[in-house]
Amino acid sequence: MSTGSPVGSHRVVNPAGALPQAAERLDPDPEIADDEVRIAIERLNLDAASFRQLRTAHGGDGAAVRAEVLDIVQRRGKMHNPVTGSGGMLIGTVDAVGPRSPLGLKVGQKVATLVSLTLTPLRITDGLAAWDGASEQVPAEGHAILFGRSIAAVLPADLPEPVALAVLDVCGAPALVRRVVARRPHAATTVAVLGAAGKSGSLSLAAARDAHAATVLAVVRTEDEAARLRGTGLADRITVADATDPLGLAEAVTAALDGRGADVTVVCVDVPGCEHGAILATATGGTVVFFSMATSFPAAALGAEGLAADVEMLIGNGYVPGHADYALHLVDSHPALAELFTTRVGEPEEAR
Amino acid sequence: MSTGSPVGSHRVVNPAGALPQAAERLDPDPEIADDEVRIAIERLNLDAASFRQLRTAHGGDGAAVRAEVLDIVQRRGKMHNPVTGSGGMLIGTVDAVGPRSPLGLKVGQKVATLVSLTLTPLRITDGLAAWDGASEQVPAEGHAILFGRSIAAVLPADLPEPVALAVLDVCGAPALVRRVVARRPHAATTVAVLGAAGKSGSLSLAAARDAHAATVLAVVRTEDEAARLRGTGLADRITVADATDPLGLAEAVTAALDGRGADVTVVCVDVPGCEHGAILATATGGTVVFFSMATSFPAAALGAEGLAADVEMLIGNGYVPGHADYALHLVDSHPALAELFTTRVGEPEEAR
Repeated sequence: MSTGSPVGSHRVVNPAGALPQAAERLDPDPEIADDEVRIAIERLNLDAASFRQLRTAHGGDGAAVRAEVLDIVQRRGKMHNPVTGSGGMLIGTVDAVGPRSPLGLKVGQKVATLVSLTLTPLRITDGLAAWDGASEQVPAEGHAILFGRSIAAVLPADLPEPVALAVLDVCGAPALVRRVVARRPHAATTVAVLGAAGKSGSLSLAAARDAHAATVLAVVRTEDEAARLRGTGLADRITVADATDPLGLAEAVTAALDGRGADVTVVCVDVPGCEHGAILATATGGTVVFFSMATSFPAAALGAEGLAADVEMLIGNGYVPGHADYALHLVDSHPALAELFTTRVGEPEEAR
Repeated sequence: MSTGSPVGSHRVVNPAGALPQAAERLDPDPEIADDEVRIAIERLNLDAASFRQLRTAHGGDGAAVRAEVLDIVQRRGKMHNPVTGSGGMLIGTVDAVGPRSPLGLKVGQKVATLVSLTLTPLRITDGLAAWDGASEQVPAEGHAILFGRSIAAVLPADLPEPVALAVLDVCGAPALVRRVVARRPHAATTVAVLGAAGKSGSLSLAAARDAHAATVLAVVRTEDEAARLRGTGLADRITVADATDPLGLAEAVTAALDGRGADVTVVCVDVPGCEHGAILATATGGTVVFFSMATSFPAAALGAEGLAADVEMLIGNGYVPGHADYALHLVDSHPALAELFTTRVGEPEEAR
């Protein structure tokens, strides 16, 4: 047994020198290196974009979708949809822990992986016999491998599993929001969350409050979403605006914040075209945190330049140490959050 | 005469509600609002991607390229290449200044616009008669409009115009690098600049030094580029590595920095696929600043998550207050920089 590369490059079959995510094919050999962990899998959660593509490509034929997922995993050694480039996450039970694994896991623990399936070595052994190909929740037998630098969270006993998974899926957002808000130099920080009624959005509201923001503004698309948030205590103010309409959004945010832009604007709206509105809605010297995977790098960079906007723009890193525990803690402390997540389970996942 | 929108939305003909950059068509009426400025244009600098596309589309036929540029400007009221989505910049002389313009310009000053041509109202009156269609430098007569929030820099008298333009084209990079390095909590900050022999790269080296970085590391692709930098005093250390090879790059940077990743990594390499290498080359708690327009937002976001990398990732905003003066000041203070820029004038511009 040898020590692997902490980022898993020893599992890359081809092309040589690639990291696991960029690789065409990984080696899912069940024998682990001494810093790896093997998971006995129970269920894959395909990401929404991937499942939609597969279902559309096969005209809704579940058996054909199942056959293609099996084929991808067989060919690539990972569930990495070659069309969408996306994966998903999985849950299972810790089956073996190498003596040098830094992840702190124990055999028998039930865990969710927080790194994408696009870089997780995977072998399926039951032909996905228990899956009808009609849902992104895929019961499965087989195993997956975690590297030294992978991330997995032990599932909490006190939360329904689908709710816990939905929370873990977006847990990077509240941790980063807390950090960004907490380090602002002034006490009276205002935070605007675009897409505030969604999963990453509602957690971001709670994190902003937790980091002692002076005013937390929820921006939502519809009156219906506003109604979901009212009375929850998650936001100080709620406004309805279209994040893809730059001038309309900036006006709505400024009006809700007594004539100023937000010090921190958090973008959780998973549709293209929110960059310019988010920039315009942010005060000079403020920060925009982009969590939406629909964010365009050039639109943000050239947009800020074209608007002469002195704002800092962060790419929402899905990893912040302690992010899983922090998100679960927020849900634990805010019954309204648990309720929001429970009603949203079964609705489409945000793309990630 | 009325006050315009500071972001120029009053000049948008269609679609309604769009910002000038996203607009299909702008109104280049020479009559200015009282916060606008009119420029008598002298020369357009088409951006490299746009000019390459035009030349290729017309098989190198200069007259056809000229006709298409005229047609675009006539149709759209701006030089916004509909295929590449890019523009360029222009130089000219201040012709009229509205009484409420905040830009501080005076009639008769020679200026370069620092906002993209994709959002600058433009009318051409000489049919581009002095241009052969064979170069991205386009002599032109006509006028352009600057809004309240536009940016223009007065051209310095002591620098050849092509050198000054090349410096101004990338002037956002050194200003942001200075800010990011200067606010690091510890004194012994290490900075790695990828693509350090290029225009934004070499300015970033000088800015890192100016912000009192403890060690400035230049990372270049070839021995030839390393030779250009040697003896200039711009970098403390120089290493040759391919920024698109993540593991190779991380190893080279770590080796050059005595076994640690960089506290600040600056990405100035304008080819796709540098995200994962930059992340891996950065120390925990460090910052990656992406200036390359070839940066992929999802590759950066999912890459950092997949590598469990606790690094902050910034979208390189091309606007920081004072950026033009700061970049010109750096060139003034470092003869080696002026020399590097002089040799690079005539080479392809970095895409922006």
